[in-house]
Amino acid sequence: MNLALAGKSVADSSRLDVMNFLNEIAGSYPSAISFASGRPAEAFFNIQEWIERLPVFVHHFARQKETSFESAFNILAQYGRTNGIIGDLIAEQLRFDEGISCNAAQVLVTVGCQEAIDLCVTHLCPGPDDVVLVRSPTYIGITGVADLNGIEISSFSCNDDGGIAQALRQAAHAVEVRGKHPRVLYLVPDFDNPTGTVLSRTTREEIIAFCAEKGIVILEDNPYGMFRFEGEKIPTMYALDTKGCVIYLGTYSKTICPSLRVGFAVVPAHLSRDNSSGGDMLDQLSRAKSFVTVNTSQIGQAIVGAVLLTEEGSLGRLIGPAVNFYRDNRDAMLASLETSFEGWEEKVKWNTPQGGFFLTVTLPFAFRRAEAETCARDYGVLTMPLSFFALDDGQDNCVRLAYSNTEPSNIRKGIDRFSRFVIKRLKEK
Amino acid sequence: MNLALAGKSVADSSRLDVMNFLNEIAGSYPSAISFASGRPAEAFFNIQEWIERLPVFVHHFARQKETSFESAFNILAQYGRTNGIIGDLIAEQLRFDEGISCNAAQVLVTVGCQEAIDLCVTHLCPGPDDVVLVRSPTYIGITGVADLNGIEISSFSCNDDGGIAQALRQAAHAVEVRGKHPRVLYLVPDFDNPTGTVLSRTTREEIIAFCAEKGIVILEDNPYGMFRFEGEKIPTMYALDTKGCVIYLGTYSKTICPSLRVGFAVVPAHLSRDNSSGGDMLDQLSRAKSFVTVNTSQIGQAIVGAVLLTEEGSLGRLIGPAVNFYRDNRDAMLASLETSFEGWEEKVKWNTPQGGFFLTVTLPFAFRRAEAETCARDYGVLTMPLSFFALDDGQDNCVRLAYSNTEPSNIRKGIDRFSRFVIKRLKEK
Repeated sequence: MNLALAGKSVADSSRLDVMNFLNEIAGSYPSAISFASGRPAEAFFNIQEWIERLPVFVHHFARQKETSFESAFNILAQYGRTNGIIGDLIAEQLRFDEGISCNAAQVLVTVGCQEAIDLCVTHLCPGPDDVVLVRSPTYIGITGVADLNGIEISSFSCNDDGGIAQALRQAAHAVEVRGKHPRVLYLVPDFDNPTGTVLSRTTREEIIAFCAEKGIVILEDNPYGMFRFEGEKIPTMYALDTKGCVIYLGTYSKTICPSLRVGFAVVPAHLSRDNSSGGDMLDQLSRAKSFVTVNTSQIGQAIVGAVLLTEEGSLGRLIGPAVNFYRDNRDAMLASLETSFEGWEEKVKWNTPQGGFFLTVTLPFAFRRAEAETCARDYGVLTMPLSFFALDDGQDNCVRLAYSNTEPSNIRKGIDRFSRFVIKRLKEK
Repeated sequence: MNLALAGKSVADSSRLDVMNFLNEIAGSYPSAISFASGRPAEAFFNIQEWIERLPVFVHHFARQKETSFESAFNILAQYGRTNGIIGDLIAEQLRFDEGISCNAAQVLVTVGCQEAIDLCVTHLCPGPDDVVLVRSPTYIGITGVADLNGIEISSFSCNDDGGIAQALRQAAHAVEVRGKHPRVLYLVPDFDNPTGTVLSRTTREEIIAFCAEKGIVILEDNPYGMFRFEGEKIPTMYALDTKGCVIYLGTYSKTICPSLRVGFAVVPAHLSRDNSSGGDMLDQLSRAKSFVTVNTSQIGQAIVGAVLLTEEGSLGRLIGPAVNFYRDNRDAMLASLETSFEGWEEKVKWNTPQGGFFLTVTLPFAFRRAEAETCARDYGVLTMPLSFFALDDGQDNCVRLAYSNTEPSNIRKGIDRFSRFVIKRLKEK
């Protein structure tokens, strides 16, 4: 177990530079095979068809507003409710697809999940001594928000599921020893970006118990949970939480498409941290949102709403072909890794994610920006050093490989190229 | 001239409560005639037709990307460039409609103008001594951003155009005397919300000269400039600025419709404040945006882009019927005020805006929340006390009346109701 703490890190630009790195290498080596970007596969975006479903939502909205179809369309084009207009449909989908029980009044619709992260973190950490806890490596969306708002992040890292809750406890304790207050724990419990791992049910329950006791709010970000290829689904932390310490963050960027920019936060009815009403917190988030983006595009919401209505509440059927594609891609990547690294199994390791968009390869040498650039320039394959996502130096030997946006034939080719770089390096040692 | 300074005002909830007040009275008195909300008129939202124009933009985008129509549609549905994909079309429209000369690389497309305000203010005021200057009364979007981020606002008020620049100089000086730094001046030079007034060319030039000298960045917010009914257009401050101290903020919420949530900031090529590159500032705003909303909905941008392409660059023709409607409404309101307040001209005054959505009535008694509630409850007319927009108590006798979203027949009825309340009060004195 490797426990590390990172202090306030506005000056650490490497994390903020992940996006730039991605754009730069993709721009400089357009013909390279990319495992760098974890974008969903565009082939499954039936955006033209989804736009054609719009009238289904408009009819639904007209019934709710007790008005005509034409008038409902005009109201949709107007400014609208800050909290959004599809909270009821989102609550229904969460019940079907995630076993989450909530109602429309608990839902704040946001401009993608990123706005929900921004609003929650800035609301929950108003003071100079408030600290966000993350597991390292972590998603750059959370570290970016904290850095931009001058909020301290403390991280813990632990590659063994059984040790995570203990690592969290130690990290929180270390924060408190310094006279600071851990307020938020950000987690992607299902098929984590960047590592692709899943927290066990036991670990989830231990974390909830600890956070409820300490008054820490857990931000459970779940963009990948529905992309499980095999194995049993583990309940979301929101569903397991009986205390009122988990805010659930979701997005339609992976299940429908990113360009609608529709995400959401579900706030529990009652918050354990200060024995307060979740409704009051939602009101405060909503007020803050009104000064960031006013309200989420009602046209975007209407397209999401139309898809949810026509799919009868669950997105399982809609994403079926994409899940199969991602599974085939993962299988192709695993098979290619086995073939390409035959004879090097002792030195080169990787995990086998049961879902999501990413896997991690661990090498016996450091793989950072320079190595990724060499791979791009000399081998025609784009990869993502895990150090970009790390708050400590414990990830320097790891590489994130995304299989979500590349065809199997290119996956084989790309892994072959990557392995040639790695094996050359191994032979040089 | 009434010069007032307001300190840090997080605790002052009245401004943050404008939205709540609007929602509450609109909800409690749904059959009242409303002059409270300055929303654009829904009758001119041809959203169904605009969505049908989408393929025009997709063809344009496909040519830019050198790809097929189908592939371009899929790319549109994906995550996209943080700065947006319609900067070229926005620059063209600004050239046609506002006489503004800029290029696509200077444009940051945002989730409505509100996100642009948020990004610019938080970027330009990073330190605890940084201050935003506003003219009181002012738009709640700017005070809300400052309050939420703990940024101090200092205000000046001056009802006489000729004294505004001097009032600004005094306010800036008073900030500096306290050891603080005025960094930003927020202004709506054309048909200001809430007052409906316009800054003269001389005042604009004086303000630019002063701000350039002091290193203050002017945020010129211009949602209403295209809604001029008569009189000569005054050049935007951005167009008049030869120093590089004006950032221009725009929106398609009034000219097209609000629900697409597409606005933008235009950053000058060179910034006078620290002799720096506007491109560098745009990069930093873009980086910040990537952690707030990732990118602006590409579907929303594509609909705006389709409208701009099919209108051949200018929105003048498209908004023509709406401009006529707003002019007729203003005329109906002015005529009704004259009729209803006949014999009370000495006590009740109003301005005659040459455009925009609002006018201001000045009474010989205080008109605050309680009076507005009485009007709503007992007279069936919704109005907006100017005190909600004020940072001092100099606006307590003023009422904002919006004529943008009510039919002329209702305007006559509503002004009659409002006058019955006012005249009753005057007779009681």
